[in-house]
Amino acid sequence: DPTRETIYERLSSHYVWRSRWYNVRQDALRAPTGDEFTYTVIEKPDAVWIVPVTAAGELVLIRQYRYAVGEWCLEVPAGNIEAGCDAKAMAARELREEIGGTAEQIIPVTEFYTMNGIGSELARVYLALGTTLGAPQRELTELIELTCVPVADALRMAREGAIKDGPSALAILLSEPHLRDQFTDQMP
Amino acid sequence: DPTRETIYERLSSHYVWRSRWYNVRQDALRAPTGDEFTYTVIEKPDAVWIVPVTAAGELVLIRQYRYAVGEWCLEVPAGNIEAGCDAKAMAARELREEIGGTAEQIIPVTEFYTMNGIGSELARVYLALGTTLGAPQRELTELIELTCVPVADALRMAREGAIKDGPSALAILLSEPHLRDQFTDQMP
Repeated sequence: DPTRETIYERLSSHYVWRSRWYNVRQDALRAPTGDEFTYTVIEKPDAVWIVPVTAAGELVLIRQYRYAVGEWCLEVPAGNIEAGCDAKAMAARELREEIGGTAEQIIPVTEFYTMNGIGSELARVYLALGTTLGAPQRELTELIELTCVPVADALRMAREGAIKDGPSALAILLSEPHLRDQFTDQMP
Repeated sequence: DPTRETIYERLSSHYVWRSRWYNVRQDALRAPTGDEFTYTVIEKPDAVWIVPVTAAGELVLIRQYRYAVGEWCLEVPAGNIEAGCDAKAMAARELREEIGGTAEQIIPVTEFYTMNGIGSELARVYLALGTTLGAPQRELTELIELTCVPVADALRMAREGAIKDGPSALAILLSEPHLRDQFTDQMP
């Protein structure tokens, strides 16, 4: 990738922890100044965030219990991109698994890093237009409720901080130009 | 905290890795259904993201080399809240350390979780109004350049995905109502 630069010289590298979800890697580096230091990287697969919208102009939010923060959070469906899987196909699969959704059209919106100070994860945002809901196929440990709100309300909620999962709020706000085009009747 | 609920019963808990930056904790849990499973949590201190704006209506962005993703990213200043430190005081300190900034007024904007599926970090967003720039006091390993852009341009960049650090882009977009109030002359 020609946009990637190597600024630090990597002197050595080892894993301090590995799991099926992510690895923690520790690198010994030398800066251009000559200073040597250690950098720890959470190696995590990239992930998709999917903004599902129905033909009637409702955005489908999920209210999910998040053990890591001990709270129920409003979110959009998301999941890791499995090795060898296409990101768009993965978005369609997460949509189906988490909310039983199928979409008429899934379009790529943009990408962002979720935690570039400590980890490699890239969030790839997709908008699922014409989504219809069916029976989800969730993991046993997922506690999820669905909430459908008009697109304009979801944008307002994201802007006001009511969607406390940061990547979900950003995914919704980054979809705004597409949503404005599709649902002009709702926009102020 | 009365807003926090305990949904899962914690059967046991141990650390698989500890460091000065974060710990990786693994808990054995029992779901309300009776199913037992393991949940791994990145225990990380909460952090501040600071949106610095000058009296002349420019937003101060930093372009920072991020080893974890191998790219230079546009961001706003940010840093962990050290144990026993007040979040707003920490925001003032990061502003000073990263860009040599001092602000006339630092106001809390909102909060969001950065990675609620795998970690506990809460991002606390502050807007630094009337920021003036001086000499930063950076860590040797930080590679940072400053870029000042009109507030309206920074909002457009965040909305268009040009600010690839997700939490920074969201911090700017969540500050929009305050920025619109302060810099009405720039707004379309």
